Amino acid sequence: MAKDLGVTSREENYADWYNEVVKRADLADNSVVRGCMVIKPHGYAIWEHMRDALDRMFKETGHVNAYFPLLIPKSFLSKEAEHVEGFAKECAIVTHHRLMNDPNGKGVIVDPEAKLEEELIIRPTSETIIWHSYKNWIQSYRDLPLLINQWANVMRWELRPRLFLRTAEFLWQEGHTAHATYEEAEQETLTILEIYKRFAEEWMCVPVIDGIKSDGEKFAGADHTYTIEAMTQDFRAIQAGTSHHLGQNFAKAFDVTFQSAEGKREYVYATSWGVSTRLIGTMIMAHSDDQGLVCPPKLAPIQIVIVPIGRGDDRAAVMDATDKIAADLKATSWAGLPIRVKVDDREKESPGFKYNYWEMRGVCLRIEIGPRDLAEGKVVVASRLGGDKKEVQLDHIISTIATELDLFQSSLYQRALALREANTHRVDTWEEFQAAFAQEGGGGGFILAHWDGTQETEDAISAATKATIRCIPLIPLDPSDNEPGVCVYSGKPSQKRVIFAKAY
Amino acid sequence: MAKDLGVTSREENYADWYNEVVKRADLADNSVVRGCMVIKPHGYAIWEHMRDALDRMFKETGHVNAYFPLLIPKSFLSKEAEHVEGFAKECAIVTHHRLMNDPNGKGVIVDPEAKLEEELIIRPTSETIIWHSYKNWIQSYRDLPLLINQWANVMRWELRPRLFLRTAEFLWQEGHTAHATYEEAEQETLTILEIYKRFAEEWMCVPVIDGIKSDGEKFAGADHTYTIEAMTQDFRAIQAGTSHHLGQNFAKAFDVTFQSAEGKREYVYATSWGVSTRLIGTMIMAHSDDQGLVCPPKLAPIQIVIVPIGRGDDRAAVMDATDKIAADLKATSWAGLPIRVKVDDREKESPGFKYNYWEMRGVCLRIEIGPRDLAEGKVVVASRLGGDKKEVQLDHIISTIATELDLFQSSLYQRALALREANTHRVDTWEEFQAAFAQEGGGGGFILAHWDGTQETEDAISAATKATIRCIPLIPLDPSDNEPGVCVYSGKPSQKRVIFAKAY
Repeated sequence: MAKDLGVTSREENYADWYNEVVKRADLADNSVVRGCMVIKPHGYAIWEHMRDALDRMFKETGHVNAYFPLLIPKSFLSKEAEHVEGFAKECAIVTHHRLMNDPNGKGVIVDPEAKLEEELIIRPTSETIIWHSYKNWIQSYRDLPLLINQWANVMRWELRPRLFLRTAEFLWQEGHTAHATYEEAEQETLTILEIYKRFAEEWMCVPVIDGIKSDGEKFAGADHTYTIEAMTQDFRAIQAGTSHHLGQNFAKAFDVTFQSAEGKREYVYATSWGVSTRLIGTMIMAHSDDQGLVCPPKLAPIQIVIVPIGRGDDRAAVMDATDKIAADLKATSWAGLPIRVKVDDREKESPGFKYNYWEMRGVCLRIEIGPRDLAEGKVVVASRLGGDKKEVQLDHIISTIATELDLFQSSLYQRALALREANTHRVDTWEEFQAAFAQEGGGGGFILAHWDGTQETEDAISAATKATIRCIPLIPLDPSDNEPGVCVYSGKPSQKRVIFAKAY
Repeated sequence: MAKDLGVTSREENYADWYNEVVKRADLADNSVVRGCMVIKPHGYAIWEHMRDALDRMFKETGHVNAYFPLLIPKSFLSKEAEHVEGFAKECAIVTHHRLMNDPNGKGVIVDPEAKLEEELIIRPTSETIIWHSYKNWIQSYRDLPLLINQWANVMRWELRPRLFLRTAEFLWQEGHTAHATYEEAEQETLTILEIYKRFAEEWMCVPVIDGIKSDGEKFAGADHTYTIEAMTQDFRAIQAGTSHHLGQNFAKAFDVTFQSAEGKREYVYATSWGVSTRLIGTMIMAHSDDQGLVCPPKLAPIQIVIVPIGRGDDRAAVMDATDKIAADLKATSWAGLPIRVKVDDREKESPGFKYNYWEMRGVCLRIEIGPRDLAEGKVVVASRLGGDKKEVQLDHIISTIATELDLFQSSLYQRALALREANTHRVDTWEEFQAAFAQEGGGGGFILAHWDGTQETEDAISAATKATIRCIPLIPLDPSDNEPGVCVYSGKPSQKRVIFAKAY
């Protein structure tokens, strides 16, 4: 497909490339408010498709949605000791509730009389405010399990924000469930992890490794944390979703007990889990290229663009064919939804301009309709994944498009999987380990190495190489990964290999 | 249907009745944060159905969704002079961005070092932050129209909050569009008003009067405001949605111009429009009764509850029939979606308890399946709208349910319409006018009266009676309403009757 001229290449500067793709594909922009982004319609449409697919999966597994307050009393945050210690204290704090006209000039000032008795925090996550409610909702084992999810905005005052990957405000879903037993909460945590993995792989075309976090990387206040980890094109890890078993920690902090079937009063077990607009950043990092956004068909705002070619006398026949194909495609269902089609009939722009324009914006397939081809009963189909253009008979265009979308979805996954496999290595010596992460700027892929299981070693490795333990895989990538060995750093015994990488 | 014993009647105390319905139907609850509510799963499900239906209508008319920041720099609010003057100054103000451990004890305090240079306001509405973005997005007439909607939370520090009707934080959609001409913006404003009216009447079963606001009641910063107004069962008006023509006010405040097709630089015309979780309150006020929630089938979280009756030997046969009917109903589409069915097979609760329980929660139809009826090949269907129970042959149950849902939807609308018509009156003397609004507590219905068109008279009438001008109807309720007359208060000439009511 045609070259786009204006974007920094990945090789040249990966960070600049990422930012330019986000902006030039019209996905999002920085806002005047530090660290906050504006999600533009083209980017928000991706989020809507993500939300709808995930929401369906949550509901199929018995979850319902609810909505809890944006603001949390300051004192709530310190009720669970590890939670307040481990959680970033950078947050947005509401201290007043009224403005007044500036007596000394134009505009408005904060009314000093309107100071709140207790400051309120814009939720960085909602465990505390939700468990405060659950205390009233849960009395008996008959009230359990409580399987609630919330779609909401949250805020963490990020010092080094990056569009989608790390912004002060972001959109997410946060599940908060309550259970009678540890085992049931564990099952819930794993059910959600499986949904996240399936969503990443089957919708986003991003292969992920599901595993458990080391204690040093788990959620503040959790018993343990599961994660899915993806690889970027600069060979770093990106945490795409987490599912936490919270034990009885929050139930104890907020005094939430239930009467068991045997009549005993017991603390409730909890889980929480979330994915966010960071998934959009993950998807860009995994698939996009130097021509702009590459988007899996299941999540693409526009799957097909039709570019009619021809002026003057040819125009009418070309536009008739264009309109008919567009209408037929829109009436066709693919992956459970009508195919999303855009006709680019701008008269002032050249076909070449349009090709670049829609490549930049991640449209999966392009149909070119010109008078000469049309006279022969055919059109040209080009894929955003590259390769030759195909001539397709008009009679077969609808079935061909459906097949091409299937192929696009599976090829994109395979391409990302191949990248990950080519950049996953087993390392047994500290020299090799250091060498793997020596490159400035980029990552070093996923390194499977033995670790002695201590926080001390984890910290020392991270200090020396900037690589951290991304997870201990639930299922070994290779059976030999679960054979005992010696720690790559300390030489002490190790039960299995874990995954190290530099992370976003 | 069975009587519920625990709810205050509407006649006894309408405000208490409303609050009890909201809480006992499990829709929402007050939260620990003053003025903020927790929307519980049963209430949130109504909002999801509302959102999905409205979102579809917005998209069918060419709108797309986006997301803008939660926080607005304080200085933005005063850029449009009328906006800051007219808008409530009660809002949540963020002044700091970091907590720290309390050096004098446990817990956390605000870090005094982390004071923001400029305070940020949690959006009470987003015109200012959005028009700041539009400045970068709009250069040429080719960038217009811009038809953008946002689903978001907003916050206004309400002094007298009421669940759903008036809460500090609420959920809403806010459309913000940009146009090349005044006329096009006017058309947009009316297109949206028509969507709101259609949604209120066809989904919510709430008849509304669409009209224009007097200058005293228009949105702060608008050229003019359109509204839809509904009637409650205590004969007050409730504003259910508004659509504002903003003229060039915000374009001028944020310097947003475009180059016209003729090459001239001109200010952009704007509209904004919104409906919120207040619609849930409106629906309760219009339909619910002393047994609890009454919900239109198109928006009901659960449309059908099946109560199997029978113990011991009968249980298996009854449960088989229950499961089959439930599965058949779930596989049936009504109003474009699968029918939403709940089976209440709790063994410890009596049928009577279950009837009350689901009546309180607004389930539209109940199917009772008992062994004796079943032996005769039939079941019993009861409607939440009252009336006799019907015996229905098993063979016909699916088609009967679909018909009953249709009937429920239309009957509910007709009932609300009859209430409004019985409480809409034309009044021509000041004595009659005062008498109409003399009742303490309740409203006085909709009073169509002549008004001289001045703010002065509007204020005087409001001061004397607490009734305000709800709107000047777009289409007269009766042709005679548009005949000239004399103002009910001042005796000065008037072109037409307008609607007065006490409002929520």
